[in-house]
Amino acid sequence: MSNLVGVPTVGMIGGGQLARMTHQAGIALGVTFRVLAEGPEVSAAQVARHVTVGDYRDLRTLREFAAGCDAVTFDHEHVPTEHLHQLVDSGVAVRPGPHALLYAQDKGAMRERLTALGVPCPRHAALKGLSDLADTAGELGGWPLVLKTTRGGYDGKGVWVVEDLRAAEETGVFDAGIPVLAEERVDYARELSALVARSPSGQAIAYPVVESVQRDGICHEVIAPAPGLPEELAVRAQGIALRIAGELDVVGLLAVELFETRDGRILVNELAMRPHNTGHWTIDGAVTSQFENHLRAVLDLPLGSPQARARWTVMVNILGGEYPDMHRGLLHCQARDPALRVHLYGKEVRPGRKIGHVTTFGDDLDDVRARAQHAAAYLTGEIDE
Amino acid sequence: MSNLVGVPTVGMIGGGQLARMTHQAGIALGVTFRVLAEGPEVSAAQVARHVTVGDYRDLRTLREFAAGCDAVTFDHEHVPTEHLHQLVDSGVAVRPGPHALLYAQDKGAMRERLTALGVPCPRHAALKGLSDLADTAGELGGWPLVLKTTRGGYDGKGVWVVEDLRAAEETGVFDAGIPVLAEERVDYARELSALVARSPSGQAIAYPVVESVQRDGICHEVIAPAPGLPEELAVRAQGIALRIAGELDVVGLLAVELFETRDGRILVNELAMRPHNTGHWTIDGAVTSQFENHLRAVLDLPLGSPQARARWTVMVNILGGEYPDMHRGLLHCQARDPALRVHLYGKEVRPGRKIGHVTTFGDDLDDVRARAQHAAAYLTGEIDE
Repeated sequence: MSNLVGVPTVGMIGGGQLARMTHQAGIALGVTFRVLAEGPEVSAAQVARHVTVGDYRDLRTLREFAAGCDAVTFDHEHVPTEHLHQLVDSGVAVRPGPHALLYAQDKGAMRERLTALGVPCPRHAALKGLSDLADTAGELGGWPLVLKTTRGGYDGKGVWVVEDLRAAEETGVFDAGIPVLAEERVDYARELSALVARSPSGQAIAYPVVESVQRDGICHEVIAPAPGLPEELAVRAQGIALRIAGELDVVGLLAVELFETRDGRILVNELAMRPHNTGHWTIDGAVTSQFENHLRAVLDLPLGSPQARARWTVMVNILGGEYPDMHRGLLHCQARDPALRVHLYGKEVRPGRKIGHVTTFGDDLDDVRARAQHAAAYLTGEIDE
Repeated sequence: MSNLVGVPTVGMIGGGQLARMTHQAGIALGVTFRVLAEGPEVSAAQVARHVTVGDYRDLRTLREFAAGCDAVTFDHEHVPTEHLHQLVDSGVAVRPGPHALLYAQDKGAMRERLTALGVPCPRHAALKGLSDLADTAGELGGWPLVLKTTRGGYDGKGVWVVEDLRAAEETGVFDAGIPVLAEERVDYARELSALVARSPSGQAIAYPVVESVQRDGICHEVIAPAPGLPEELAVRAQGIALRIAGELDVVGLLAVELFETRDGRILVNELAMRPHNTGHWTIDGAVTSQFENHLRAVLDLPLGSPQARARWTVMVNILGGEYPDMHRGLLHCQARDPALRVHLYGKEVRPGRKIGHVTTFGDDLDDVRARAQHAAAYLTGEIDE
């Protein structure tokens, strides 16, 4: 450990790419960054000095990891809520706290709380089991319905769109013993994301609202700002995110994934309380990245400007494909586009796995999108020229 | 070590802030970064995974460190040239190679070579000893003269301006047994820096030419681009740097520190073959930072765009002063200016030591300079409001 005066220590639970990029931001801030990693070679563990390999489901591991940290925060939402309460009770600064994080961990609790706050959500109902479903379908406006496990889902996992009772049964969603949420399938025009950061003292900033283009339930492309979004809707989306952050006492980043409906409404889809895929564009595209602002927030440092640096910034995920050798692909992409920004996560290539992202920026949206999409498709192996 | 296909490994000799910021850039490129550090808690060692503590003057240490590296590069110029030749002979990709690095290590060799190439330099003469000096002063246009040790100087160390023979003797410069160079004292209007990157295949890029404002022989402030520099002079400065890089077969970054004389000439002052203080502005101010382009160059990846992202970018160094607690100072500076970019090096505060830098950017040069200078002065402890 460094013994410099005043250097804060942040511990992040989970060693994925979010921790990797948070460490990268922390280097500039002079933060001592510790990571509780799933294994010695996970994404963040490859590049950080202070790595503890351990199981985030084990309270003792968490306690030992948290000792000496000025703040403990998260790369994912999977740490058991009861363990986090124990850490708080023993004086650890868990940020966001378990009372807030609950609403990113449990979609049922989230829907209930947001509805109580008057935040617009899709119509929804908690299901006791398959037997409820016929009645629920009626209440929610009929089939198809969206079924979600209330806990443990991510990147489209744990979410099903079903056309009828039989299809609902075949998902097996009721077999896992996890409460299930049914929601109307919203007729949305597109998906948006409103990203805000909030500090313990209540300071908050809102990034420009972005459009998130999904493929197979996974974020594929992010366009900042969301093209053609009326100012009034953008402000409303930012207001929703800021209000949720305040009401739920979120500390750190809050990503609010939203539906923009065809009839001009904004509905909350999901919450995440950590740096988020729809904020990766901020590394190259904003004055202060989401990763830096997450660190500044959890340390209660003043937050940095979320202003965009270019007229348009586009991020496209690189998914694992047929192309195991990223660095050979890089030669082509970097030679073709010297202004391309590449971010690799050090992950072994597996089909469909997020292994990196590319970012482009400029004044001409069509050009900016085409450059990012080309590079990502090339690195993924979808195209070969 | 990672066993990902195609992930290159770069080893950097020296664990200062240049290595720290190069590691930060390497994280995005997916590079495995190793550092040969002077101690376990030096700047880069605090934040990197693969740290070897060892003495860069020991050939065996260098050999062991280089094993398995796709390229070996430098945080400083102090590795003995003969060791580097040994490494090259045993197949290590030393970048820049010792045949090039020599001209950053030995100011006498540099002056001789640049003069042979017709590159404009201050008038100079190699001194055999104090007894030469009276005649040399006559040849160089009279007193005052600049005396420099040909090896081992940095940040104004190893450089003296002397008014007469007695002052020259009092420097003690002739006592160390290192050859001494005498140069005319150039009547310069200001100092400029031309930064270029060059890859083994010969690709090269040139960053915008910057003004470097010195204080007590140490770089204090960098303004990008150099205000009011005529296009013709900027192109000439870039041309000089590109020509030197090519003729000397430099691989990686080359910083050419220049004098702009009052009569409109450009003269080469010093060379550095590594990321350079006059290029720190590129982290926040250019499409591709000098650190990323250094890595791309030494790995023979295509180079990234050196284009500036804002009309003006200003970097000011934070020197150690009366203020040992950087993070308390940060609270003030970040609250006052949310767009301020702060980079701390994890170094213990000692008076006059470079412990970080701040960067600002925008359209109004006076405002951009004032913001950066205020923050650096506050963090240094020169001002308290």
